[in-house]
Amino acid sequence: METQESGSIGDWATRAADPDYRAAVLDLLGALAYGELSAFERLAEDAKFAPGIADKAALARMASAEFQHYQLLHDRLAEVGADPTEVMSPFVEPLENFHRLTAPSDWLEGLVKAYVGDAIATDFYREVAVRLDDDTRELVLGVMADTGHAEFAVERVRRAIEENPRVGGRLALWGRRLMGEALSQAQRVVAERDALSNLLVGGAEVQGFDLVEVGKMFNRITEAHTRRMAALGLAS
Amino acid sequence: METQESGSIGDWATRAADPDYRAAVLDLLGALAYGELSAFERLAEDAKFAPGIADKAALARMASAEFQHYQLLHDRLAEVGADPTEVMSPFVEPLENFHRLTAPSDWLEGLVKAYVGDAIATDFYREVAVRLDDDTRELVLGVMADTGHAEFAVERVRRAIEENPRVGGRLALWGRRLMGEALSQAQRVVAERDALSNLLVGGAEVQGFDLVEVGKMFNRITEAHTRRMAALGLAS
Repeated sequence: METQESGSIGDWATRAADPDYRAAVLDLLGALAYGELSAFERLAEDAKFAPGIADKAALARMASAEFQHYQLLHDRLAEVGADPTEVMSPFVEPLENFHRLTAPSDWLEGLVKAYVGDAIATDFYREVAVRLDDDTRELVLGVMADTGHAEFAVERVRRAIEENPRVGGRLALWGRRLMGEALSQAQRVVAERDALSNLLVGGAEVQGFDLVEVGKMFNRITEAHTRRMAALGLAS
Repeated sequence: METQESGSIGDWATRAADPDYRAAVLDLLGALAYGELSAFERLAEDAKFAPGIADKAALARMASAEFQHYQLLHDRLAEVGADPTEVMSPFVEPLENFHRLTAPSDWLEGLVKAYVGDAIATDFYREVAVRLDDDTRELVLGVMADTGHAEFAVERVRRAIEENPRVGGRLALWGRRLMGEALSQAQRVVAERDALSNLLVGGAEVQGFDLVEVGKMFNRITEAHTRRMAALGLAS
């Protein structure tokens, strides 16, 4: 998904002198931090569906990894003089809405959600990483590093579909619903957070909100989702 | 709660040659491991009651600490050639029963449970630690190290009682119920696991099950619970 140039735009100290840039990065880190905290919570909750102790422990391990990421983001926000709770608060409702509207009803739905949700988030943050200063980019790419969701989920979901092909139809529908709700909440956030939106669609160079560019970015993420669902053996 | 002598009985390699000792320690580590995994799950679930992001993150931090402990115990079981899932399985039902019968209905009940549950477990494992070989004792005392429950819970529960003294009556009842259910499940485990029971009441020296000694141990743990509830501002 490397769609932009990858040159450096400078470090945090230099760029943060621009209040618009600083506001946009705080938004981004706040969204990412609360995203990690709510991912922790959902993975931990979905562990109750695990068919055995080893699977339960595997989900708990992923949840703990998400919490470690949360802690890194929290500490960076505090380090740059922001109030982490305040910075995260605009993103509580969209993320809680997303999770409320996509509560898995069983183990496989939970796995597909962990896999798809993580992948969509990773795509999104990789899109935006190229527009960030060196320090922030390093942090964002670090916390987006693989937490082991993908391999674990893909292996189990594929096996379940092999054993019972009808499971595939239900999970394909589920994957579409996940993507739809994710886009819906993301579009709401983008529409409400000006500084963040400007950063997403053009970095410091672009002034004003470019709906076409945002749409293109969401299309790239949707295409990647479609490829992933196919890899999982699901029509999207 | 240092009620026994603290001399060394040797290291794991020496003691594990005795199959009864090995079976008892595997039971103990299995119970402790599944206890940590289910503590992770419950703390993570109780995080949903948190009144704000910072409190939610505090509970998630404790849950992650429990998971790290689980991982250490799991790895030790694998290291000594045991199947961790098999060793944990006898303790799944008693621990799930305990949690099912003591599901908190709000944030304060969750905090009291985290505090009391952690303290009871710590008392129990300290009682038994003196009867263990050096390697196992080091591991057990290590995973029982403070995960920050106590200070966090005490501060918040005390403040809630100060603000509304009637909360104290409800939480005192809740504390009694937690202790009652914990004793009930523990007694069931002790009655069913001979090797573990022998280790609890007398180590390798004592043969046969000594109900009086088990009763005394449970009494010491109950007394410590009473003192803790008083420290929390609650009659027990």
